[in-house]
Amino acid sequence: MARVFKRLTPVDRVVSEVLSRLRISLAEEEVPLEEALGRYASRDVVARMDIPSEDRAVVDGYAVRSKDTQLASQASPAVLRLADRVLIGEYPSSPLKPGEAVEVSTGSPIPEGADAVVMLEHTRVEGGMVYVYRSVAPGYGVSRRGEDVRAGDLLVRRGTRIRPWHVGLAAAQGYTSLPVYEEPCATVLNVGDEIVEPGEPLGPGKIYDTTGYLVRSYLREMGLRVLSRGRVGDDEEAIERFYREALEECPFAFTIGGTSVGRKDYSARVLERLEGVEYYVHGIALKPGRPAAVAVVGGRLAMALSGFPVAALAELQAVFEPVFYRALGLEEPVRPVVQARTLRRIPATPGVRHIYRVRVYMDGRGSYYVEPLRLTGSGVLSALARGNGILVVPEDTTGVEEGELVEVELIGPPATLESR
Amino acid sequence: MARVFKRLTPVDRVVSEVLSRLRISLAEEEVPLEEALGRYASRDVVARMDIPSEDRAVVDGYAVRSKDTQLASQASPAVLRLADRVLIGEYPSSPLKPGEAVEVSTGSPIPEGADAVVMLEHTRVEGGMVYVYRSVAPGYGVSRRGEDVRAGDLLVRRGTRIRPWHVGLAAAQGYTSLPVYEEPCATVLNVGDEIVEPGEPLGPGKIYDTTGYLVRSYLREMGLRVLSRGRVGDDEEAIERFYREALEECPFAFTIGGTSVGRKDYSARVLERLEGVEYYVHGIALKPGRPAAVAVVGGRLAMALSGFPVAALAELQAVFEPVFYRALGLEEPVRPVVQARTLRRIPATPGVRHIYRVRVYMDGRGSYYVEPLRLTGSGVLSALARGNGILVVPEDTTGVEEGELVEVELIGPPATLESR
Repeated sequence: MARVFKRLTPVDRVVSEVLSRLRISLAEEEVPLEEALGRYASRDVVARMDIPSEDRAVVDGYAVRSKDTQLASQASPAVLRLADRVLIGEYPSSPLKPGEAVEVSTGSPIPEGADAVVMLEHTRVEGGMVYVYRSVAPGYGVSRRGEDVRAGDLLVRRGTRIRPWHVGLAAAQGYTSLPVYEEPCATVLNVGDEIVEPGEPLGPGKIYDTTGYLVRSYLREMGLRVLSRGRVGDDEEAIERFYREALEECPFAFTIGGTSVGRKDYSARVLERLEGVEYYVHGIALKPGRPAAVAVVGGRLAMALSGFPVAALAELQAVFEPVFYRALGLEEPVRPVVQARTLRRIPATPGVRHIYRVRVYMDGRGSYYVEPLRLTGSGVLSALARGNGILVVPEDTTGVEEGELVEVELIGPPATLESR
Repeated sequence: MARVFKRLTPVDRVVSEVLSRLRISLAEEEVPLEEALGRYASRDVVARMDIPSEDRAVVDGYAVRSKDTQLASQASPAVLRLADRVLIGEYPSSPLKPGEAVEVSTGSPIPEGADAVVMLEHTRVEGGMVYVYRSVAPGYGVSRRGEDVRAGDLLVRRGTRIRPWHVGLAAAQGYTSLPVYEEPCATVLNVGDEIVEPGEPLGPGKIYDTTGYLVRSYLREMGLRVLSRGRVGDDEEAIERFYREALEECPFAFTIGGTSVGRKDYSARVLERLEGVEYYVHGIALKPGRPAAVAVVGGRLAMALSGFPVAALAELQAVFEPVFYRALGLEEPVRPVVQARTLRRIPATPGVRHIYRVRVYMDGRGSYYVEPLRLTGSGVLSALARGNGILVVPEDTTGVEEGELVEVELIGPPATLESR
């Protein structure tokens, strides 16, 4: 008898069922500015003062009362008395009197009374007098207080993953720290008698833990704090204990392996009968990744991931990522996506979402091409080594024809077409 | 008199002149697998063993000698003797004899003598005998040793920034550590009398350090170790001392501020007269970012960046990034680029590369639109706050017309067109 799932649940259905039941809130902390890089903002950060904080020159020249230049021309310059010079970082000591001009550099505050700056090249200085050869309108050459940023302006939206310019913006406002979410934690357990830790001797029929390293790194890259709980054999009691303790400790718990239908679905089976299960599904319309089990337990998320690395990746990408970002209100990363032409037909089963690891090529004219890599059977690690793209074939199709244009996410630099 | 550069050097020229003179080599270190994430591989990492390490079943069923099933059919099954069961992680203790079948699960090693696996659904077991209803060819249902990965296959190329799957691949081969480059270091100094550290009182005419925070975060995000050397005033001796010491310590040294042409180009001027200068340029055909000065000193790179945040960003992006990745042979990050239609004309000066911070919108049908943000004068911080894209207008154009399609790099999620 073939061991098949009686029913596969569509990916989007799993995601929405989980989202409607999760109750996760993250603690906030205040971290020094330079440690905020890569963290998620836990509150809107707004400007607390106007920038510029005062009217400033935006050109080098002379601050004037514009009225005093009204009739100035090349033939008949206005003649103003030169007042004390003002440099960037120095403040004009006294208001500008009628008939006066004061030297300013780009960025200098404009003294009280002045309302415009005449550019240096339209002036000449002689004997303590400034000859102004052009009339200026009020505001000319001046950046007004608050013109760039006004107190109250939004600088960093809650949920943003902080990039260098957010740090700079906060610094510009005198902030020394930023409010960020505590890194959400996730516990991870390897399940399986055949798994050996790298560095240990590899007995017959054993394989080195691959998916555990992959999953933990993947979660870390997303910004989670990962607690590895090592490995247990095919031992339901140990798996159950893990889930119970893990979900006490962290909002997310993952087992790896023990999900295939049949004798070896320990992890999935244990998940179903945990106390407090509010939602449970085993068998997702996702390829690879069909055997994953997903549960919401006490408002927290537990996933029994497949032991196969490419399948576990697909499960994280299709189910965990949207749940994670949406449940916590975090900004989803912007992914590099290119339009590529398929070099072979890519088959797909209708009703199932396929996530292919693919090889993306670029020709000399900047056009992209895409070729699927073997995903099933044994072509698993080579797909990880050679894959530089991810192609999602949605549920409503029987595949992609050769030569069709598809959107592919680049996860590495494209190869040259000649290297194919 | 307007203070202008007599000559602006094209960006690509600066990059190639610098690259031909840099002599930077990074130290290597061996770090535990899970700490290698985000680091750059310093050597090619190759497979040291075949995977699978032995012939394995890729379906659940019975391992057989294919010869024994030659004439099997639904009407006339082959009848084989059931030998000891083999599970994943257990090794077959003895070779399969002619006329025998042994139960295997997906992943189980195939015993010596067997050369195919009959799928469970084409068999029936009764009284210690296996009835095989289908003939199988040699190799059917079997993954051969080395079929996925062969010893010597390239897993991670030198210069790759290590992602989760690279960690997984190395683990699969039993590696416990990976060879990575030491994080290259960069020293950074703020120059300017008007700069105040966030948290300190902001006197009249002063501004909080913005560009320093921005630049240091940017370098850190690229994977550099950043040594901040604080701030000096407009003090040529202090700047010179900084450069001398910084270039002893690190392959990259940056000052921020003191580059504008005229009275206040301390940083640029100091750079030119440093001992051991092999290349020097002040004034780049880049907007913003024109006043940057770039020097190669004793095979190392020194840059006097503009004090304006958006200009410093453009200088890092246009000059430092290509130099950094190419000089060290590191993989350049793949950037998310979309085709977007301009909502306004975007002017450009021929012969100058323009780097615009832009706002990218998406309409309900997934089409992108782009609008430039004010870059010069005072619209500097708001461009950082509102910019979610970067548009590079190359040297060979006078601008981009309204409604033209351009390629834009997304640095944040696109806004909805309705929010415009």
